[in-house]
Amino acid sequence: MDKSEFIECHKRIKPFIHNTPVLTSHLIDEMVGASIFFKCENFQKMGAFKMRGATNAIMLLSHEQRQKGVVTHSSGNFAQALSLAAKSLGVKAFIVMPSNAPQVKKDAVKGYGGIVIECEPTLKARQSESKSLQEKEGATFIHPSNDDNVIVGQGTACKELLEKHPGLDYVFAPVGGGGLIAGTALAAKYFGYNCKVVGGEPYEVDDAYRSMLSGIIETNKTTNTIADGLKTQLGDRNFPIIQKHVHSITRVAEDEILYAMRMIWERLKIVCEPSSAVAFAAVIKEKNLIAGKKIGIIISGGNVDLGILPF
Amino acid sequence: MDKSEFIECHKRIKPFIHNTPVLTSHLIDEMVGASIFFKCENFQKMGAFKMRGATNAIMLLSHEQRQKGVVTHSSGNFAQALSLAAKSLGVKAFIVMPSNAPQVKKDAVKGYGGIVIECEPTLKARQSESKSLQEKEGATFIHPSNDDNVIVGQGTACKELLEKHPGLDYVFAPVGGGGLIAGTALAAKYFGYNCKVVGGEPYEVDDAYRSMLSGIIETNKTTNTIADGLKTQLGDRNFPIIQKHVHSITRVAEDEILYAMRMIWERLKIVCEPSSAVAFAAVIKEKNLIAGKKIGIIISGGNVDLGILPF
Repeated sequence: MDKSEFIECHKRIKPFIHNTPVLTSHLIDEMVGASIFFKCENFQKMGAFKMRGATNAIMLLSHEQRQKGVVTHSSGNFAQALSLAAKSLGVKAFIVMPSNAPQVKKDAVKGYGGIVIECEPTLKARQSESKSLQEKEGATFIHPSNDDNVIVGQGTACKELLEKHPGLDYVFAPVGGGGLIAGTALAAKYFGYNCKVVGGEPYEVDDAYRSMLSGIIETNKTTNTIADGLKTQLGDRNFPIIQKHVHSITRVAEDEILYAMRMIWERLKIVCEPSSAVAFAAVIKEKNLIAGKKIGIIISGGNVDLGILPF
Repeated sequence: MDKSEFIECHKRIKPFIHNTPVLTSHLIDEMVGASIFFKCENFQKMGAFKMRGATNAIMLLSHEQRQKGVVTHSSGNFAQALSLAAKSLGVKAFIVMPSNAPQVKKDAVKGYGGIVIECEPTLKARQSESKSLQEKEGATFIHPSNDDNVIVGQGTACKELLEKHPGLDYVFAPVGGGGLIAGTALAAKYFGYNCKVVGGEPYEVDDAYRSMLSGIIETNKTTNTIADGLKTQLGDRNFPIIQKHVHSITRVAEDEILYAMRMIWERLKIVCEPSSAVAFAAVIKEKNLIAGKKIGIIISGGNVDLGILPF
C-alpha cells in the first residue's frame, strides 16, 4: 500500500463520498491545552468513515465480480456502508447479520438497498453463511477491516484532514477491527510532516494494546464497553501496519469515554458515536504528550440510537 | 434599516463571529420533497445566532457608553451572547436574571464573563433591577430582540446563507421575541432574489401568528412548549417589520417539533435546540408550499441540557 495507491483511491471514490468538514472549538482547545481539529466523519454518507473503504473495495472489483455482487458479515456501520456503496455503484450487496441484531440495524441496511441474510448469532454460522453465499451467488466477500482496499479507503479521511491542516503533530483515531487506524497511520506517513498516529481503545476491549505488547494478535476476554463499534479484533492484514506505523495506543475507561462524548456533543454541537469519543478521550488522557501541539481526531461516526443515550 | 446597514454591520462583526456552515442531507431532501439548506447557528460562538446582534449592538455604542458597560435581562441565549460579546470587546455586561433561573444558566453567563444580578422572578422586578443598573452604573440597556441594531445583527445569518446559496425560494426561521425573523426578512429582501421568509411558531405560544391577524401585538396565554426560547413576545421595533416583510407564520404542534428535532439530530448529526426544530417542523408542515423548491432554514442554536433530552 504505497502513496500512489492512496492518491488513486481518493480520486476514485471522491464522487461517492463527502469531503467532510473539520471543526474546532476555542473552549475545547483551552480545556485540553492543545489545538484540536475534529475530522467529522459523522457527516459522511450513511454516517461513518466506513463508506470510504466499502466504496473503494467495490470499485476495484472486475466487471464480472461486480455483476455477481458482494457479501460481508456485520451488524454495524460496515453493513450499511457496503449496502449504500453497492447501491451507488449498481451492485448487489448480501449482508449476513445475526438473527438477534436490533431490527433498527436490519432496517437501516435494507433502507440502503442491502439484502439481509439472517443467521444464528455465532461466529461459525456467520462464516458458513457468507461462505455459502460466495459459492451460491459467486459474490465477492469484503471484510469490514482486514482488507487492503478497505484499509486504503479508510485512510483517505486522514489524507483529507492533512490536506486541510498539513501541520498536525498527531492524529488520534479509535481502534476496533484495525482498518481505520492502519489506513490513518499510512496516510499520516505519506501526507503528513512527521505526523504521528495514536490509537484510542477502551480498557474493556484492549486487544490492540495487548497485541502491540505481545507481538501477536490478541483477543478480548471482556467486551463490556459502551463503544460497541470497537469490539472487533485486529486481522493479519492490518496488524503488521499498526505494529510498524502506529506510535502508541492509549487505553481509556468507560467514564472517560462518556465524559469525552458529552464534551463533543455539548461543545462541538455534533452527534457522535461512543466509539468516536474514545479517540478524544485518549487525547484528554495524553495531556503531557499533546500539550501545545496540533492534534487531529477522526470522529468516526454518528449513528447512535437517540432513545438509549447514556447521558 | 436599509441595505447598507446590513452590509456595514456584517463587516463590523465579522472578526467576532463565525460564518457558520450550511449543511444539507439527501435523505432529508427526499423525505420532504425539497432542497433544504440548514444554516447552522448552533455552531456560532456561544452556540446561537444571538451572538451576532449582541456584538453589533455593543460595537455601535460610543466610547463613553462602552466604558460604563451594558445591561440586559435574559435567562436564555441572549444573556450568554451579551456576556461573551462584551468580553470580546472589553466591555462590562450586567445580566439581570430571575433568582429561580437554573444554576447552569447562571454559571454559563459567569463563564463568559457576565456579571449576574439576581432579582425576584417577576417582570416588574426584572425591569426595575435593570433600570436601577442603568442609573447606578450608567450602563446602556440592550434589549434581546426589540432593538434595531440587534435586529440587523441577527439578519446577517440569512445574509451569509444567501451569499452561499443565492437561489433560495424561501427561508424559514423560528419566531420568539421577533428579532431573528425581522432581521431575516429584511436580509432576504436585500440579498435574495424574490426570496420569501416564513416564521415557525409553536401553537402554545402563537402570539406572532395572532398579532399578524389582528394587527396589534398579542400576548401569550399559554407557554407550555418545549421550545423554551420562543416564549417571549414581539416588540414595537420588530413587529412592523414582520407585518410588512414576513410572508406568513406557520404554527406547529409539540409532537411535530419533537419529530423535526429528532430528524435533525439523527440525519444531520447535529445538536440543536427545540426552538431550531420549530422552523424545520414548519417546513415539513408546508409541504405543498415548498414542493420542489430551495429552502433555507436558520438553525438558531444548540444549547440544550443533555441530561433532560425529550427523546
